[in-house]
Parts: sequence; structure tokens; C-alpha cells
Amino acid sequence: MSFKDEALAYHLGGKIGTNVKVHCESSKELSMAYSPGVAEPCKAIEADNELAYTYTNKANLVAVITDGTAVLGLGDIGAVAGKPVMEGKAVLFKKFAGVDAFDIELNEKDPQKIVEICKALAPTFGGINLEDIKAPKCFYIEQELQKAVDIPVMHDDQHGTAIITTAGLLNAVEISGKDISKIKIVVSGAGAAGIACAKMYKNVGVKNIVMCDSKGVIHAGRADLTPEKVEFAINTDERTLADAMRGADMFLGLSRPGLVTPEMIASMNTEPIIFALANPVPEILPEEVAKIRTDAIIGTGRSDYPNQVNNVIGFPFIFRGALDVRAKKITENMKIAAAKAISALAKEPVERDVLEAYGLSELKFGKDYIIPKPFDRRAFVWISSAVADAAVKDGVARVKNFDLEAYKNELKGKMR
Amino acid sequence: MSFKDEALAYHLGGKIGTNVKVHCESSKELSMAYSPGVAEPCKAIEADNELAYTYTNKANLVAVITDGTAVLGLGDIGAVAGKPVMEGKAVLFKKFAGVDAFDIELNEKDPQKIVEICKALAPTFGGINLEDIKAPKCFYIEQELQKAVDIPVMHDDQHGTAIITTAGLLNAVEISGKDISKIKIVVSGAGAAGIACAKMYKNVGVKNIVMCDSKGVIHAGRADLTPEKVEFAINTDERTLADAMRGADMFLGLSRPGLVTPEMIASMNTEPIIFALANPVPEILPEEVAKIRTDAIIGTGRSDYPNQVNNVIGFPFIFRGALDVRAKKITENMKIAAAKAISALAKEPVERDVLEAYGLSELKFGKDYIIPKPFDRRAFVWISSAVADAAVKDGVARVKNFDLEAYKNELKGKMR
Repeated sequence: MSFKDEALAYHLGGKIGTNVKVHCESSKELSMAYSPGVAEPCKAIEADNELAYTYTNKANLVAVITDGTAVLGLGDIGAVAGKPVMEGKAVLFKKFAGVDAFDIELNEKDPQKIVEICKALAPTFGGINLEDIKAPKCFYIEQELQKAVDIPVMHDDQHGTAIITTAGLLNAVEISGKDISKIKIVVSGAGAAGIACAKMYKNVGVKNIVMCDSKGVIHAGRADLTPEKVEFAINTDERTLADAMRGADMFLGLSRPGLVTPEMIASMNTEPIIFALANPVPEILPEEVAKIRTDAIIGTGRSDYPNQVNNVIGFPFIFRGALDVRAKKITENMKIAAAKAISALAKEPVERDVLEAYGLSELKFGKDYIIPKPFDRRAFVWISSAVADAAVKDGVARVKNFDLEAYKNELKGKMR
Repeated sequence: MSFKDEALAYHLGGKIGTNVKVHCESSKELSMAYSPGVAEPCKAIEADNELAYTYTNKANLVAVITDGTAVLGLGDIGAVAGKPVMEGKAVLFKKFAGVDAFDIELNEKDPQKIVEICKALAPTFGGINLEDIKAPKCFYIEQELQKAVDIPVMHDDQHGTAIITTAGLLNAVEISGKDISKIKIVVSGAGAAGIACAKMYKNVGVKNIVMCDSKGVIHAGRADLTPEKVEFAINTDERTLADAMRGADMFLGLSRPGLVTPEMIASMNTEPIIFALANPVPEILPEEVAKIRTDAIIGTGRSDYPNQVNNVIGFPFIFRGALDVRAKKITENMKIAAAKAISALAKEPVERDVLEAYGLSELKFGKDYIIPKPFDRRAFVWISSAVADAAVKDGVARVKNFDLEAYKNELKGKMR
């Protein structure tokens, strides 16, 4: 069977449904699940809205919302055509972190209306994961929505990639012994993910970032920049990607296959970090890099090379932690805490089941292993607890008397 | 434990979550459920939107949507306080008919905006069940939304009660041997359910309907009527409920406890049908009726009296049938088909497990059994197939070459 046929067969009937969490087999139980018994939690929640976290599934429920305008690398394919991706996201939320997620595909493209719709939907959920909404409207939607609602909102295309590549960056810098405040990073692609990555790198101490879009380097002399790009416009004589790559310590590619030449790779600083995340074909293949230099630390979006940058090591656990402290928002510190937890986990000895899943006999912290594998079950404990703790410290958690160690133990008890 | 405490304990953590329908335990399966495999169904659906019924859960997914303005008998308690009811509805959809349902509580009360939001949400779902939205805006919302989307929309508070009481009415008329075109029906309560019931009674042949609201009989001389009520305003000298009840063959109460007096009951025609559906205390208790006359056929909303009018014998199967033929709307014929199937099912010998569930040794078609019990598992086959067949005959089904007998057999194979 071809890959396409196999993928289509896998999707027959869809990937996510509902699960009834209560016993409801008798007339008596029916009168609890529905009228008249159901009136009691309704009245309790009417008197104190926060009790929705106690008497409904709100505390474990995330909306995965898209308008279908930037689905995978396929572009604006429309709301309903994005449904397999959103269902897939819901599958990963559940499988990796026990989070229930409803996928919602919106037949609406106006940013302001999307904000209004999501705002109206908010009482239903404990969090909102925005997904595959194109730039620059995704920035506006996320920002305005988070202002309007009291549950955490995260556009995963922006922050997922930012968090995971930041984790990789922290580890790569540690391996090469470089000073993070002195490295030069080139970001190729100034869409949702590129902008979010650059912001986060700044927040962990990077000072020299050169961003490139399809027209080349984003410099202060350009008159064609969106407000988000203006924030990263710098005074420089560099105009092309090739100019920018000279002496760079890191390349982050969120652009297109084959964009990076061997010459560019050769012109980078020693022990360069190369995250070539164009999918399925990266900006440059790891084997091409290897022909030119052996000191590079390389990551891609693919599972068949080392250092896969896969959002699944992030979003399920970020929302797990945020939900468990009933957070009101996702703060920058929560995202950085997630990145640091991912970074730290890569330094732990890899568990046997993970090695077996990947057919490896060994996997040790180093150039070929700076990001934990998606199936590392400890991610559930490490990342979720780091995010929850940061939420509490930032004062955005609803839960009182949070006990980090007790929470970690609770998570350990629920590990896959 | 008090009933209240028991009901609250039953609701801890909520009643509905998600269920992953695919195997997703390895890196390979992950690449099917998510990128890159997921791109294949996305591309297929982009090329032909109807394939969403094949490659996603759309074909089995209903939205249960409320604005929280008319929750149970509690009134306008707000969106989030309505969540236990909507989750309960989702539980019943799944338990009784295998339908997946996402509950959505909208923090929005403007009817036009609710229509717009639901319209935007529509690509996600195979059907929309509106719930607990107050009259008269519920009429506008249902009507405008059904015009705007190509999936079935049903406001269950209106049509659920209409369908089930119509089933009861058909059976009661058969038992008493009356001519449906000559009976007089008094409807007390002209809200969402009352209006819908009156419409449906007309559609099955009733000609003489007197509606009452809180101000008495809805007659042609009143200047305070909404458009929905005007449709039922009649030329009559009757002004009070007591006036209307004289000589009536049926009373439908959707009003308030104790509204009906023994005198009113005494003034009704022979073998009157009395559906006293105010909850939890009916307009008149069955034992009060029994003191006055023994020829009445009585139904209530309660499970502790005979002839419970409970929507759960309707909506799960109506949507089951509509989803299975991928219907574009719910037509009047589909609703009447549901009513007739419910009516017919009550004439069948009751299965042993149902008798046991209610602690009964026998239950035979007659005055005390005109409506099937919610746990009668045959409802799944009878009602769903009747609705699907009516959808096909009305030309609103997407499926081609529908085979009713094959579908019935398929349902039988899936019976609880």
C-alpha cells in the first residue's frame, strides 16, 4: 500500500470521539446524568462559576481551533479540510497528556470575528489551542483573545516551535561551550513560528538575531514590514540569507526545501546549530551538511533524523500543567519553563522503552541528542510540573496552596 | 446522602471526555495521526469537502449548543452554569445512539450573533442540537441557522417534546377510538415547546387547538402576541384555562405546578389525555386526577409515574438517523416519522430487560403505556431507521442508494 493509501485508510471514520465518564445504565443513573439530578451542579455553578472546574469537564478540556488558513504546509485549504489535523492534535493531547480536546474548524476568516467567536466559546473550555491560522492575523487573534478571556490561550504554531527549538538551543550552547549572549542566530522565515522563536530566543538571552523573509534580510531600511517584523528590523549591511549566514552560530529554517547551500553552511561559525525545519524536505539535508563539516548540531522536523523538532513534546504538557493549576493565561515564564524542562530532560539517561521504539541501543546527551523523543514518558511529569509551577509563581493560577512535589507525584502516578 | 449531595458527587470531574479511535503508540503511527500522514486526508477533503464525512468524525458528531438562557426550569443561569446539562445531553447521545457530541456553552445572547457563531462552527459537525435557548429567540435562531448551513439543526426543547407527545397522542387517540381531526387540544404554555407541539399536532391532523399563555387563552383579539403566537390565535369566547378545558380531549401542560384544578379535569371530554409536563411537579398529579375520574390517560415528565415524556426516547435516534444518511436538514417529515416510530414501538411486547429495569412484571399497550421506556433498546433501530428513511424520501440525504432493510440490519448489529 502506498503511503497515501495507508494514510487515508488510517483516517477512515476519523480519529477522535467522545467517552462517557460516568455510569449511566439505569433509570436512577439517568436521573442523575440528566434531569432532575443535573440541576444541582447547574445551580452550584450559577452561584459560583469557578465550580465549573469541579462539576464539569472544563478542568480537563481544551479547544483546538483553526480557520484552516495555514494548515501544515498546505496553506489556506479551508476550515473542514483542516479537520484531520485538528483531530490529530486532539489525539496527541489525549495520548500524551490525558487532556480532552474538542477540535473546532471555523468557517470564518475575519480576525476580529474569530476573536469574538472564540470569546463566546470560552466558558466551555479550560484552555484554547489556536492552530494553523496564518500570519500576521494569528498574532492579533492570540493577543486579543487572551486579553478577553480568563483561560489560557496558545497558538501552538508560534510557541510550540519556539519552546522546542529554545530547548535545543540551550543544550547546543551548553555542548559547544558558547556564551548565549554572544551568539548570532539567523532565522529564515518570518511567519508565525519565526517571529515567536526570535522573541523567545531574546527572552533567554540572545542578543544578535538576523531575520530573513522571502525578500531577504529584515533590516531597518525596509519599508514593507508588518509591525511584527519591524520589531526585528536591524541596522545591518547584510541583505541576503548568504550574507546573514556568514559567522552565524545558529540557523533556524522555517522556510522552504533546499534554500540553504553548502557554501552558506561552510560560512557559519564553529559548531553551528542548524535547525532546518521545512517539512517534509528541510532547507538542507543532514547528509549534505555532513559533506561540508562535522562539527554541526543538526535538527529537522523529521523522525528519521536525529533531533526531531516535534511540537508533541510541548503542547500536551504545557496545557496539562496550565489546566491542573486552572491557569488564567499562558505567560512567557510558563513557556520558558517548558523549554528548560525539555532541555533538562534531554540530559537524563534515556529509558529502555524509548530506545526500543526507535530501534536504538544507546542515546546520550550530545550533538545527536539535544531534544527528548516524543515517546519519553517522563515529559508528562517534567514539563507539566514546570509549567504549573511557573503559572503559580506568575500569579495566574486559580488553585491555592499549590504543592509542586505533591503535583509531581500525582503526575508520576498517572504516567503512561 | 441527600439527593443534592448524591447529584453533586455524581458530577465530580464532569461526565464527558474524548476517546481516541485510532492506534497511536509508535513513531510510525504518530506520523499517520499527525504530520506527515495527516496531510493526505486534508488534501482529499480540500478537493472534495464531502470526504470530511469519510476521513473525519464529522459523520458521527453533533454539537450540543446553548447560550444558557433557558436551562431546565432554572431560567437564564448563564452559559457555563448550563454545562452540566449539555454534558448530560452528550452522555445520552453516546449511551443511547453511539453519537459523539461536543457540548458548547456560548457566552453570547444576541440571536443574530448566535446564528453567526453556529454557522462558523458548522464545518466541524454533522449536526447541531440547539438546547435550552429561550423563546422567542430560539425560533429565529433555529430557522435562520438551518437556512445558513448544510447540516441538520434541531432545537430539541421544541421538537423533542413535540415528537414524543405526538407519539403519545396518536396512541391515546387509537385507544379511545376518537377521530384526531375532531379532538380539542388545550396547550398551556406558549414557549418553545408549546409552540412546536401545537405545530406538530396540526401536521398530524388536529384542527382544534386552544393555546394559553400566562395571560390566558391566545385569541384573535389580543394585541400582545409574538408572531409565533399569532399563528395560533383563534376566534373564541374562551378567555381562561378553565374556559378552554371544558370539553377538551387533551391537555398539554408546559407551564407550572398545580395550575390545573380538579374542576378543570372534571370538565374535560371522556377519556381525556392529560400530559402534565411541568417538572418536577406537574400541573396536576396523577393521583389527583384519579380521585376525579378513571378514564384519563395521563403522562408526566417523571420516571416514577407511567407514560414518562422524556426526550431521550427521541433526540439520540433522530440524529443517529440523520447522521447516517448525511442529512442536510431535519424536515417535518423526519420528525413525524420519529413520532410514528415511537408510537409503533409502544405497541410491541416489552422486552424482559426493560421490565426488570423498572421492576415490572408486565407492561402492555394501553392507558398506562403509550410511550416506550427510554431503555427500550429497539428504539435505536426503529426510530433511527424511520428518520433516515424519511430524510431520503424528502431528498435531504447525501447518501446514494439508501437501502432501508440493510440499514435496519446494520443498526440491529450495533444495538446495545
